[in-house]
Amino acid sequence: MKSLQSLAVGIVGLGLMGGSLALALRAKNACRTIVAVTRNARTRQDALERRAVDAAGDDLRLLAEADIIILTTPVRTSIEQLPYVGQVAKAGAIVMDFGSTKRDITHTMQALPAHLEPIGAHPMCGKETRGFESADAHLYRNAVFVLTPLGRTSPETLVQTQSLATAIGARPLVLDAERHDRIVAVISHLPFALASALITTTDEYAQTDDLLYTLAAGGLRDTSRLAASSTTMMLDILLTNHDNVAAATRTCANHLNELADWMESADETVLRSRLERAAASRRRLKFDV
Amino acid sequence: MKSLQSLAVGIVGLGLMGGSLALALRAKNACRTIVAVTRNARTRQDALERRAVDAAGDDLRLLAEADIIILTTPVRTSIEQLPYVGQVAKAGAIVMDFGSTKRDITHTMQALPAHLEPIGAHPMCGKETRGFESADAHLYRNAVFVLTPLGRTSPETLVQTQSLATAIGARPLVLDAERHDRIVAVISHLPFALASALITTTDEYAQTDDLLYTLAAGGLRDTSRLAASSTTMMLDILLTNHDNVAAATRTCANHLNELADWMESADETVLRSRLERAAASRRRLKFDV
Repeated sequence: MKSLQSLAVGIVGLGLMGGSLALALRAKNACRTIVAVTRNARTRQDALERRAVDAAGDDLRLLAEADIIILTTPVRTSIEQLPYVGQVAKAGAIVMDFGSTKRDITHTMQALPAHLEPIGAHPMCGKETRGFESADAHLYRNAVFVLTPLGRTSPETLVQTQSLATAIGARPLVLDAERHDRIVAVISHLPFALASALITTTDEYAQTDDLLYTLAAGGLRDTSRLAASSTTMMLDILLTNHDNVAAATRTCANHLNELADWMESADETVLRSRLERAAASRRRLKFDV
Repeated sequence: MKSLQSLAVGIVGLGLMGGSLALALRAKNACRTIVAVTRNARTRQDALERRAVDAAGDDLRLLAEADIIILTTPVRTSIEQLPYVGQVAKAGAIVMDFGSTKRDITHTMQALPAHLEPIGAHPMCGKETRGFESADAHLYRNAVFVLTPLGRTSPETLVQTQSLATAIGARPLVLDAERHDRIVAVISHLPFALASALITTTDEYAQTDDLLYTLAAGGLRDTSRLAASSTTMMLDILLTNHDNVAAATRTCANHLNELADWMESADETVLRSRLERAAASRRRLKFDV
């Protein structure tokens, strides 16, 4: 197997994830060359000026020489791009994506030509800021880097993509796509839905009280932070994981209504026990990021 | 009216709020003396050693010489303490509390002897950490400091408490207790309920998938942060503001179920419009803290 340092990497999309990947690979001198495909002319110029990439253009045919192709566009865009990537990629090329949901895209990857090596990936990091200007060479450091191999993925491809994850400071973890999507629905997509519904609620109340946001402090700031995420990205995520996210969202809405019931009935014992259990769990959680 | 610097301040409770108040007043040399009442012997010793207070004990009679008495215990504890404070406080003393809800406590303050000067307060700051060891002289800096005068509160008392707020770096804002409680239910107590219900939900899922928390990243961390708040404090808050919090919680639960409906029906247009509106609102919000 060739070493990662001898390989040409092609990145599609130079937003937060793609831009940070280019910067991280470059900072570690982890591969031979980096070529990027993005429609954004300004981003291409920025990335070339910062020497994050060796070449950049808006045509997927630029990926023809890449040994590893990584799609970092929103999930449904990546799904649309896959057939074209399949046409241009050279024999033996690894085709990986960084999408936040894995069932739909790995299903689509099954249809790639047999001479390509598809695998799904999802680095568990991110920010609510967007674009190459938010990119950060340290974004992936210590992040869990989920890999979702297909049945057809070769052991060599799995090892090669694990070494790419390690090269940018992340911790590879192999999972099947179904399990990944069930987990992220709860720990990632549900928190977004909560943050968004919270802002919808505060906005509604703010219409009848112009001091509402004047009193807002750190609690609202942190709990609602995810609501500012890219709508295009989140819409792709929610619609390609709708069954899991809808179920988790309804479960959480039920728990909220339970809390409201106990407040209204002043059921102090059960309310205390529920809040105390959640507080203890939250204090036990350790976050590396 | 006497200057704040000539006055003796008595603080009941030396947790995050009371301890930070003592440290802030001391740092600014804002008053003549500070006496603290707390049942926690270790905290009394720490506060004396750090010279945060001039005297400390576990008996409310220590407040007999105080010109301004400030209750920083959980709301229902403060409500229980008020009659005793009323017995020991000297004529003309200001009796203020820092509780997170204002209707119940200001209602109870109505019954204080006529020679006392009650007023409610709520500095809009806090952390999910507790105790004197978390106290911070800068906690109140730039925080909105809500004052809820009673009908019987004199203009001099209002001015004196405004100058106390300013002395510790906060920004005084006069509000009636009803309006305060409606606002904080939405911007402060609802985010706590969401965070707590989120952890209840993730815990439930974690029981059937031991990798769930391994994949958790910054989104879950921030959205759930408030769930670790003191249960005793939050229970007091929720039960003395149950009508407002329950209503806001049910409104938000409805918005969550709407999101789930649109995900399940793949109603992309309406889902996009809702998420985009919340994202734009969240990006407009500016937080000083």
